[in-house]
Amino acid sequence: MADFTHFNEQGRAKMVDITEKTTTVRTAVAATKVIVNDTIYEKVSNNDMAKGDVLAVAQVAGVMAAKNTSQWIPMCHPLQLSGVDIAFDWEKIDESYHLHIEVTVKTKGLTGVEMEALTAASATALTVYDMCKAIDKGIVIGQTYLLSKTGGKSGDFKRK
Amino acid sequence: MADFTHFNEQGRAKMVDITEKTTTVRTAVAATKVIVNDTIYEKVSNNDMAKGDVLAVAQVAGVMAAKNTSQWIPMCHPLQLSGVDIAFDWEKIDESYHLHIEVTVKTKGLTGVEMEALTAASATALTVYDMCKAIDKGIVIGQTYLLSKTGGKSGDFKRK
Amino acid sequence: MADFTHFNEQGRAKMVDITEKTTTVRTAVAATKVIVNDTIYEKVSNNDMAKGDVLAVAQVAGVMAAKNTSQWIPMCHPLQLSGVDIAFDWEKIDESYHLHIEVTVKTKGLTGVEMEALTAASATALTVYDMCKAIDKGIVIGQTYLLSKTGGKSGDFKRK
Amino acid sequence: MADFTHFNEQGRAKMVDITEKTTTVRTAVAATKVIVNDTIYEKVSNNDMAKGDVLAVAQVAGVMAAKNTSQWIPMCHPLQLSGVDIAFDWEKIDESYHLHIEVTVKTKGLTGVEMEALTAASATALTVYDMCKAIDKGIVIGQTYLLSKTGGKSGDFKRK
Amino acid sequence: MADFTHFNEQGRAKMVDITEKTTTVRTAVAATKVIVNDTIYEKVSNNDMAKGDVLAVAQVAGVMAAKNTSQWIPMCHPLQLSGVDIAFDWEKIDESYHLHIEVTVKTKGLTGVEMEALTAASATALTVYDMCKAIDKGIVIGQTYLLSKTGGKSGDFKRK
Amino acid sequence: MADFTHFNEQGRAKMVDITEKTTTVRTAVAATKVIVNDTIYEKVSNNDMAKGDVLAVAQVAGVMAAKNTSQWIPMCHPLQLSGVDIAFDWEKIDESYHLHIEVTVKTKGLTGVEMEALTAASATALTVYDMCKAIDKGIVIGQTYLLSKTGGKSGDFKRK
Repeated sequence: MADFTHFNEQGRAKMVDITEKTTTVRTAVAATKVIVNDTIYEKVSNNDMAKGDVLAVAQVAGVMAAKNTSQWIPMCHPLQLSGVDIAFDWEKIDESYHLHIEVTVKTKGLTGVEMEALTAASATALTVYDMCKAIDKGIVIGQTYLLSKTGGKSGDFKRK
Repeated sequence: MADFTHFNEQGRAKMVDITEKTTTVRTAVAATKVIVNDTIYEKVSNNDMAKGDVLAVAQVAGVMAAKNTSQWIPMCHPLQLSGVDIAFDWEKIDESYHLHIEVTVKTKGLTGVEMEALTAASATALTVYDMCKAIDKGIVIGQTYLLSKTGGKSGDFKRK
Repeated sequence: MADFTHFNEQGRAKMVDITEKTTTVRTAVAATKVIVNDTIYEKVSNNDMAKGDVLAVAQVAGVMAAKNTSQWIPMCHPLQLSGVDIAFDWEKIDESYHLHIEVTVKTKGLTGVEMEALTAASATALTVYDMCKAIDKGIVIGQTYLLSKTGGKSGDFKRK
Repeated sequence: MADFTHFNEQGRAKMVDITEKTTTVRTAVAATKVIVNDTIYEKVSNNDMAKGDVLAVAQVAGVMAAKNTSQWIPMCHPLQLSGVDIAFDWEKIDESYHLHIEVTVKTKGLTGVEMEALTAASATALTVYDMCKAIDKGIVIGQTYLLSKTGGKSGDFKRK
Repeated sequence: MADFTHFNEQGRAKMVDITEKTTTVRTAVAATKVIVNDTIYEKVSNNDMAKGDVLAVAQVAGVMAAKNTSQWIPMCHPLQLSGVDIAFDWEKIDESYHLHIEVTVKTKGLTGVEMEALTAASATALTVYDMCKAIDKGIVIGQTYLLSKTGGKSGDFKRK
Repeated sequence: MADFTHFNEQGRAKMVDITEKTTTVRTAVAATKVIVNDTIYEKVSNNDMAKGDVLAVAQVAGVMAAKNTSQWIPMCHPLQLSGVDIAFDWEKIDESYHLHIEVTVKTKGLTGVEMEALTAASATALTVYDMCKAIDKGIVIGQTYLLSKTGGKSGDFKRK
């Protein structure tokens, strides 16, 4: 069974030594969603000028968060990301509108990019909340999880 | 009905002008959770050396994210937070363990701290994921939402 | 005649002491432009999907740069901006298209926001360059200058 | 003809995938200038203590901006720069003094450093403005442009 | 006797609530030193071109660190500094040269600036090390301590 | 004799060109200490809830400072650290308690990690000061120095 890898001999946190790991292409895909009411859905998704912008700003927030993940997450290694892409998809469930957010991150490096994908998804969703909260503070974010990863010694992961 | 406040006359994003708002004490409380399996629960919560650390590191991540919120969220105003506190609580639901995270943020300023509380909650949860992902990449974060806010012209909010 | 204010008695740089200055509302407006060819103009300004995005991303870059100005400019005081707005305007001059960028910044604080407006204008223009450079690396930015400022002891400024 | 490379299939911004690009040495040289009056010229360039400092501070600002470019420019890839050098040169044109700023950036990486050179040039010039603005707020920056680049698949560029 | 103020009821770190503290002028002065050999002393202090620069760069590093202290120190409140000044003084002790660094920080705010002064002093000294380490990696920094503080409820402090 | 490497032909600071250096594994170990009174020693080291936290928070601060070193130290190259570990050790000397802090940093890169180790040690110590300063502002930090380094053309270093 795998064990915690972030603790040193004194039982305290460290940044795990990955010096001997191999440089390979690594990808991760994370998902979250933002659940909004119909007023917000109309305003965000309709073909008026405002349309593109909520999601455009959220997307920029997501890309920048991916690049800054080692600043958000204390024991996360700094990585030079080689690609970040964020896709949006609306779904109506009962009376609510679910804005699905899916983030794909790639790197050619010594360790995986799961945290980068999850952090970018969170920042994207939080930015949607920020830009819509004047209408409804009851917006709910998530759940947030890893969909898949490839590359690295621990092998591929695919959410069931 | 409230309207979007982040768009200028050209339909593009701006940082809303809050110059004329009043300096008052403002608080916000946000909640999220991390759902883990029993192996992780044992390791994080047991009275061994590692215990304090996962949550201690996560808490530092949450406090620092609260301070950095205007970096993560593009149209969010910079604010000088006057207090941040993060509480953890475990709950067993069926076969899973839910780590409840509740973040309280305070400021004396021109605008509210909802985004700071939500961002801190997200960073805290993401850090728990990061430190446990060697054991299980299937950990789920959230849902994430605002529990309450006080202060400011828009009045108090309390989640139903 | 005004003298340099950033040097201490040893002739080295310091962050000027503004402790005794008065908290007042201060604004600054800065301008720059990006000069592009007709191919880029068509792509950025036309009513296709890409339209909003170059300028939307540039605008987010500008707002975030305004908030981060004290990070880019070493002796610049940190300030809590209370508003940032960026406007775009196209002008055809001979065979070139000039994208005018005008940034308005407001604060209620101890010192002015000229640097915030100028830095935001620069970051906005640089982002346009970044997103169009695959088409033409010969794009020219600027000139960049202060259009006006209000508030503070040094009085108002208006460019002739 | 080259096309925009920063948009995904949904027409929104992404960080372009450079995973398959080749690690090579890449350089870029960017130029800008700051146009000041004779009072400022005398103070900045004369052999008194203050001399070195305006330009020394500006140079530090430029080097740090080069390192932080992926924070200024949303879709810009993070890169580990291997060298940054900034040169100054004064020229008198009519009644004004033009402080020419030329920034050379190098990396051994997957993508070019044009944005790093341009961003560093801008930050250097903005810092000169900041340190002289107590004397004259009418200082003009730029134009700012790429002088040359080498390395990478798109080949060398040299401004005509 | 004063007690730890950074822990919440769960015994974990929090950012202390200072909402009810009073806005007053606060100052802090911190000191450190860098102990170098005669070769480095000659090069840094002599009247050649290089002279100003080691200390000029170090001073910029110190000022920026003061502004960024709440990023270095996890539980430190963000503050808008109103002034930072750094002084250098050489002293020969036996065969070594001691570069004394003294940093004065001011703010008008809710809490003190001791950490800002100490952090700036450390960054200034570390930068001197960085710029001289090609000559001697055995350079020693410190001791580092608070010389004095004024303002705030806990009263003034003066090192004996 | 080695010469300053951070100055360009104009005698001003630059980020040294390391493009042609070799990618190798590099390590550095730095040390500092925090000297506290017995009250603080008891509170930090005793087996109550607060125990782990002062050092846990300090350790997170140290790891994050190591990752951010190129932000604190102007001419320092950005590096992707592959490991950071921080160890604590108490020693009683006369009436004082010395908390020894030792930081080990690793990378596989073009230049060494001395500055990362020294900066992390400083941030760790400063954080201990911050969390104990309500009890005693007279705490002293340091001295701070490099214990050893390996890797790179300049060879290994071991403090005598």
